[in-house]
Amino acid sequence: MSLEEEDKLVTRIRSTLGRIRAASFNVHLGMGDDAALFRPRAGHELILTCDWFLEGTHFLPDKHPPHAVGWKCLARALSDVAAMGGTPRCFLLGLALPPSRTGRWLDQFLAGLRRASLRFHCLLVGGDTTRRNRILINVTAVGDVPLDHSVRRRGARPGDLICVSGRLGEAEWGLCLLKSGAKPGALKDPALRKHLCPEPRLALGQWLAKKRLATAMMDLSDGLSTDLSRLCAASSVGALIETASLPLLRLPAPLKNASVELDPLPLALHGGDDYELLFTVPRKKARALPRSFRGLTLTPIGTITSKRQVLLLDDHGRKQPLRPFGWDPFRLPG
Amino acid sequence: MSLEEEDKLVTRIRSTLGRIRAASFNVHLGMGDDAALFRPRAGHELILTCDWFLEGTHFLPDKHPPHAVGWKCLARALSDVAAMGGTPRCFLLGLALPPSRTGRWLDQFLAGLRRASLRFHCLLVGGDTTRRNRILINVTAVGDVPLDHSVRRRGARPGDLICVSGRLGEAEWGLCLLKSGAKPGALKDPALRKHLCPEPRLALGQWLAKKRLATAMMDLSDGLSTDLSRLCAASSVGALIETASLPLLRLPAPLKNASVELDPLPLALHGGDDYELLFTVPRKKARALPRSFRGLTLTPIGTITSKRQVLLLDDHGRKQPLRPFGWDPFRLPG
Repeated sequence: MSLEEEDKLVTRIRSTLGRIRAASFNVHLGMGDDAALFRPRAGHELILTCDWFLEGTHFLPDKHPPHAVGWKCLARALSDVAAMGGTPRCFLLGLALPPSRTGRWLDQFLAGLRRASLRFHCLLVGGDTTRRNRILINVTAVGDVPLDHSVRRRGARPGDLICVSGRLGEAEWGLCLLKSGAKPGALKDPALRKHLCPEPRLALGQWLAKKRLATAMMDLSDGLSTDLSRLCAASSVGALIETASLPLLRLPAPLKNASVELDPLPLALHGGDDYELLFTVPRKKARALPRSFRGLTLTPIGTITSKRQVLLLDDHGRKQPLRPFGWDPFRLPG
Repeated sequence: MSLEEEDKLVTRIRSTLGRIRAASFNVHLGMGDDAALFRPRAGHELILTCDWFLEGTHFLPDKHPPHAVGWKCLARALSDVAAMGGTPRCFLLGLALPPSRTGRWLDQFLAGLRRASLRFHCLLVGGDTTRRNRILINVTAVGDVPLDHSVRRRGARPGDLICVSGRLGEAEWGLCLLKSGAKPGALKDPALRKHLCPEPRLALGQWLAKKRLATAMMDLSDGLSTDLSRLCAASSVGALIETASLPLLRLPAPLKNASVELDPLPLALHGGDDYELLFTVPRKKARALPRSFRGLTLTPIGTITSKRQVLLLDDHGRKQPLRPFGWDPFRLPG
């Protein structure tokens, strides 16, 4: 696009998202300059993370409504902030668009992004726009956490309980529904809602960090088998997961035209995009962990072991290796 | 790419750029987790900026060597930090690559990025990688500036001198050389070097901010005519630029096959990618401004006016409107 068009686009983004008053977010900043200014809170360190969200790789414009793309591009970046025990503060938006998407699509995208921005108290402070033949989104999220309160991936110790929030595989099931023709307008379906408009587990992450209950934590974006192996590698430990303990989905009748195996167990083990928290709790603190936190189920699913191997204990008492099912969570053409 | 390939790529990036010791940068951080941790300096506010650098839009892989792509993607983001009077601290790298670019191209790209990271004391702290059929780069740079020392675009007042650093149009000329077949290895040519490996004017920006000499400042990325009109709009003022004062290039013999007009004046007025600083100085402080700063020429080129219009005073004493020549600085197919 021409620079004039680009300036107009920036003005439009700012008028939609910039109207949220910085003061109400307790953030000191400037926008529409060479860069944004952000005044950090004393006694806190910053959490910085960036995430791609690309047409054809992470979403399909004919399947994913623009408001959901707007919501999700911020929500998934904030899931990384949640996984450190942090509080969202502000974000930068890198946006490249084809001219055909600068009308209605952009309006709805910005509306969804604005909803997420308000919901998670995370303010747009800057970004960069350009023209491209396909939609490219890159979100950089900034959060903060009181000094020495952040929870890393590397703190898990043998004997720690392995816990997850929510149900596993729900977002993957939502993607299957969407692919098989479910109307994205029907956000009443919880799986569809979870796939399209996930909720980063911010309050839970902050609570676990504040109470110093979690020794290690990360968010589940690529599926339990992949993400748990990353947590174990970072902590130099292994894990034993019990199939019987996993918070599985109860699936309705089989889906027509389903191209992937729709068994609740593989969905829970390998399904991506759940944005639940995976965390470890020392056994002596296990009693301090409630069964649910603000309506969100917390489930112990296994134990950290010293041998560097991730094992699955099946319903017949047999142990087998749980290999990271290294697929792209969306399995869309790249 | 598969998640396993992605993890390997992240490891490779970290082993190239992460070896730079955080301690030597006086930055407290973590990498290879859900997000990076960054401890801000007391008494400072943060500068946040993100920049696209896309194959086909901002660079051409058959013209721009990978080491220059690596250097420039960071350097241009840091030019925004310079324009606020800030000091670079750390950056996040969003990188999407085709499989064919994960070998030699990536090695050289990372080598160039590492050189820039060391040169500008700016540490890679995180990022996101994925697979894509063309190279996509998004850099988020984090800088800091002592509280209330940042220089914005909006502070220019009627009567202020308008100044620029360096020569204008040099990078555009370098792009012409490159397009007409100059070997990018020949970095001895200053114009080619400026196009391929620009130097953000960090020391100058910091000095102007510290001495409180500049009332408004921005970097010249899209050409003087476009950027000056933005500075004037932000400050609600106008400007009168004197042609005779502009620091023009002295061009050698005309270039064969040149597709754009290669007159030093339009190059200086509209050429993009110079990453020089454009700033305004109150007339009463004009004597405190040296003719050069650490070997970099500083040139007064005109005056801020109260009437909201940008005018050019030509060599015959005639004033004419200077319209933002709103082109993409690279004029490459988008």
